[in-house]
Amino acid sequence: MSVAANVIAERLKAVRSDLKQHSIDAFIIPRADEYLGEYVPAHNERLLWATGFTGSAGAAIVLQDKAAIFIDGRYTVQVRQQVSPALFAYESLTDRPQVDWLKENLTEGSKVGIDARLHTYSWYQQAEQELAKANIELVNLDTNPVDANWQTRPMPPQDSMLLFSEQQAGQSSSDKRNAIADMISKANADVALITALDSIAWLLNIRGNDVPCLPVVLSTLLIDSKGQVKLFVDLTKLPDNIEQHVGKGVTFYAEKELKHHIQQLSGKRLLADPATANAWSQIVAKDSNVSLVAGDDPIALIKAQKNPVELQGMRDCHVRDGVAVTRFLAWLDNEVKDNNFYDEGALADKLESFRKQDPLYQQPSFDTISAVGGNAAMCHYNHLNGTPAIMPMDSIYLVDSGAQYLDGTTDITRTVAIGHVTAEHKQMFTLVLKGHIALDSARFPKGTCGQQLDTFARQYLWQYGFDFDHGTGHGVGHFLNVHEGPQRIASKGNQVPLLEGMVVSNEPGYYRADDFGIRIENLIAVQKCSELNNAERDMYSFEALTLAPIDYRLVDKTLLTESEIRWLNQYHIKVHKSLSAHLKGRDLEWLTRATEAI
Amino acid sequence: MSVAANVIAERLKAVRSDLKQHSIDAFIIPRADEYLGEYVPAHNERLLWATGFTGSAGAAIVLQDKAAIFIDGRYTVQVRQQVSPALFAYESLTDRPQVDWLKENLTEGSKVGIDARLHTYSWYQQAEQELAKANIELVNLDTNPVDANWQTRPMPPQDSMLLFSEQQAGQSSSDKRNAIADMISKANADVALITALDSIAWLLNIRGNDVPCLPVVLSTLLIDSKGQVKLFVDLTKLPDNIEQHVGKGVTFYAEKELKHHIQQLSGKRLLADPATANAWSQIVAKDSNVSLVAGDDPIALIKAQKNPVELQGMRDCHVRDGVAVTRFLAWLDNEVKDNNFYDEGALADKLESFRKQDPLYQQPSFDTISAVGGNAAMCHYNHLNGTPAIMPMDSIYLVDSGAQYLDGTTDITRTVAIGHVTAEHKQMFTLVLKGHIALDSARFPKGTCGQQLDTFARQYLWQYGFDFDHGTGHGVGHFLNVHEGPQRIASKGNQVPLLEGMVVSNEPGYYRADDFGIRIENLIAVQKCSELNNAERDMYSFEALTLAPIDYRLVDKTLLTESEIRWLNQYHIKVHKSLSAHLKGRDLEWLTRATEAI
Repeated sequence: MSVAANVIAERLKAVRSDLKQHSIDAFIIPRADEYLGEYVPAHNERLLWATGFTGSAGAAIVLQDKAAIFIDGRYTVQVRQQVSPALFAYESLTDRPQVDWLKENLTEGSKVGIDARLHTYSWYQQAEQELAKANIELVNLDTNPVDANWQTRPMPPQDSMLLFSEQQAGQSSSDKRNAIADMISKANADVALITALDSIAWLLNIRGNDVPCLPVVLSTLLIDSKGQVKLFVDLTKLPDNIEQHVGKGVTFYAEKELKHHIQQLSGKRLLADPATANAWSQIVAKDSNVSLVAGDDPIALIKAQKNPVELQGMRDCHVRDGVAVTRFLAWLDNEVKDNNFYDEGALADKLESFRKQDPLYQQPSFDTISAVGGNAAMCHYNHLNGTPAIMPMDSIYLVDSGAQYLDGTTDITRTVAIGHVTAEHKQMFTLVLKGHIALDSARFPKGTCGQQLDTFARQYLWQYGFDFDHGTGHGVGHFLNVHEGPQRIASKGNQVPLLEGMVVSNEPGYYRADDFGIRIENLIAVQKCSELNNAERDMYSFEALTLAPIDYRLVDKTLLTESEIRWLNQYHIKVHKSLSAHLKGRDLEWLTRATEAI
Repeated sequence: MSVAANVIAERLKAVRSDLKQHSIDAFIIPRADEYLGEYVPAHNERLLWATGFTGSAGAAIVLQDKAAIFIDGRYTVQVRQQVSPALFAYESLTDRPQVDWLKENLTEGSKVGIDARLHTYSWYQQAEQELAKANIELVNLDTNPVDANWQTRPMPPQDSMLLFSEQQAGQSSSDKRNAIADMISKANADVALITALDSIAWLLNIRGNDVPCLPVVLSTLLIDSKGQVKLFVDLTKLPDNIEQHVGKGVTFYAEKELKHHIQQLSGKRLLADPATANAWSQIVAKDSNVSLVAGDDPIALIKAQKNPVELQGMRDCHVRDGVAVTRFLAWLDNEVKDNNFYDEGALADKLESFRKQDPLYQQPSFDTISAVGGNAAMCHYNHLNGTPAIMPMDSIYLVDSGAQYLDGTTDITRTVAIGHVTAEHKQMFTLVLKGHIALDSARFPKGTCGQQLDTFARQYLWQYGFDFDHGTGHGVGHFLNVHEGPQRIASKGNQVPLLEGMVVSNEPGYYRADDFGIRIENLIAVQKCSELNNAERDMYSFEALTLAPIDYRLVDKTLLTESEIRWLNQYHIKVHKSLSAHLKGRDLEWLTRATEAI
């Protein structure tokens, strides 16, 4: 996967020549495109082109006499394998370090070029202010020197837009547009700029194939307070019946027309999220005398509350996903029994092979984490970043994977015993399981936010002096983004109440560096709590969507309370009931054993 | 306690005459003095003088032709008993309603007078901006028309300042000043304005008798980034040896000199908390070209982390406080057995009579809540606001009280059975107790804030569809404010980590309107968790300071887990061990019975 250093050197030379010609002293290349999402299509992998680095986050800065690549803790090994130290210094990607690095490496009066489409407006405003203190100017370049010199740039995705029927979506696009129009009025704006690709897909009941793992169409959208929509998109992707599909009030334009339409908003109030929408769009607006109203994407909160059809789709696809995961786990156990051992990549591929048998399966919802031994202690491990390890006997194996189906999105982690496991493995697995059960069993009044529930998942680890360094849960879309907001379950900084229909992950874990990693993840949906007769508040509880056995060979039963044992046994009864009709032979036998009462 | 309506009418007339003379259309009278604390000394009870209202929160606005009094839900009955509707309209005290009321009742061009000493700077800035939208001007009056017309105003408190020795405080004032000086430098300021009376008392190791329930001296303080202090105070209160007590670097001035000294800071950066320091001080600073640095009181966080001497004082006073509470509870049980019933006031007085027997006892740390039956369902009930009720047989009684001792501050709530109680009483008491136990038993890593732990106290109520509408815990000072920040344990909006030495209350409750109220409150101190051998994080746990039996006659044992039963029994063993040496006869017998294992 690595690009030869001399190729990168040539590319750097070309970029530097362009910069010199325009009297620019530095250029920033983030791993981002104008949509600023988590996933980037191949034709927008500018950081990869300029550095050879394939990681999912990072940035480079190119000066005439030096360059640096900024990466986070996940990629300290990988960057050394992929990026030549002769060409790039390695720097840490946290707390706006690019700005600090620029201040250290440039003199007063220098000019830093950026492609404002590849940065958020918040970043742009802060960086401009910070650099100004050192008398360094941030210059918004018309032409990105990477794009100008990219000879063999892949074509942009050409796949046609997929129309998602009202039957699949549960609500017509025009009803959705009316609801969002109300939100825009309430935000005291005339028009909203929607840049989140999943928000656009949800609003128009469309899907696409433009971005890995995320079934969306590259596009940008304007919606006004009457619900009138302009979609800026590669027009060749539009199916013939698109206008009939979306109904009246949606017009389509080529992407290059966006600038002109933003300029036409002169004198109006434009709602945009400076933390997620690119700087370019908001600079164009400001320069055209548009009043910027900074605020959240008005679609996110409504989209997060799944309607009954979306929820049913999530339930349905979780049965089929559970069947695939169960067949994989059964296969794995049998292979271990037969002393056949595989590497992490082969295991991930095998798991996907079971999912692929489902006609509604589209693609993974994120890169599978298939990790044995100490590799599993790295939360964001990717076996493709190095040489996949072969699973050792008498260890534990962690697999975190998910799928995009036409009727929903899944995300599941199971940690399983390979041969004999230690008492310590069992203790830690059981403490994680207790946290998982506590969150799953929670009841909570309307208005409660994820931050208030996060501690449920950590409390038993805390009792022993342990913890895990990631959030407990993220929102999940409906055949959309596997990581969606605005709600999440984490220890800090999110005050969005959990509302009926929201789907979140429940994924406490434990990581012993260089030794082992444990995570137990189900998706759970917020539902009205119907069991209570004398409730004095509007109460919610969770419905577990994910259906696959939790490995009781890793459970230390003495650490569980009676009600926790009951939870595990009842969950397994539900798993067996949901999946058994779809399994047979050895798979069914395995499921029956794996869901026995403990 | 009520003031005759004709007296109030005369006072209003005098105020209105003053306003007319100065062409002011309205005047706001908050229940506050220039220190803006929770408690107000008698000579600053301006709202009481102007309206007759004795509640602990409220405000009045006087126009020429009308007036309104703004009160919260606690005082809807009381205000009708104390304030004549012929003189004042009753309005609700929430969300800056005074400003809305002014906009509704005044015309464009009107002038609203305020005494800027009696409002926070945050309130002032917001109110000024809001009123400006309606073309109404906020005018900062030089002379408060209440003060100008207050004929029989009480004398300000005259008690001498009490010097708190280093032995009592655990740290010298000069050491404390050096630590605060560092905080001021870190906040990028030259000088800090300290207006919180408990911060001043802590910093200078002084106490006083100027404010009910709060042992402080009315004063204002400036401290610079070198630790040099100016205290503005009634100089007659200074003991002869004050300079020796505080050490070099502290100078004393009359309160009226504060203005001049703020003006002298011209060109410097003044750290002040706009949410707690009065508007007047910051207006003076701004008018004198002082740069205002808005930030938290730099003393609060350090003060909240009790040093070993302070903690030991807290432990010691809790033994004596526990003895007093236990003697009261023993007395109460015996009276009930003898069929002697008392009203809420007599019960509160009886409890205080036991505390008064301790030579270190100074005063209550807040107004005792002594509430029977449905009165206990009002969280902030005060029997002095109406006719104290007599405890009925076969009910539950709630008493929330606390004391100021020379070595610490207490705050305890016990809910006890009077005769037979119902299964429902027991169920609700037990759910509250389970929450109390869960919080007390928590272990948590460094960096955890109270918001993350709050849910522990609510989770069992939530399981049944119940909750309580107040925070779970507030900070408590050391022979200082019974409600101190910056940390607290509540469901929303506080991200201050709990640190070693912080003392907080643990007081979940349940309130059934018009029927009964339950609260179980201990003070708990944050301590390093020493029990864990393999901890991977810096872990904290709580040490319960409060020592008094929890009424097991209200416990439904079937709802408790084994570990909860163990907690209750071990707590009672600790209570018995701590208190038994200080009790005898019937009291000791009662304690022994009340702390039996269940």
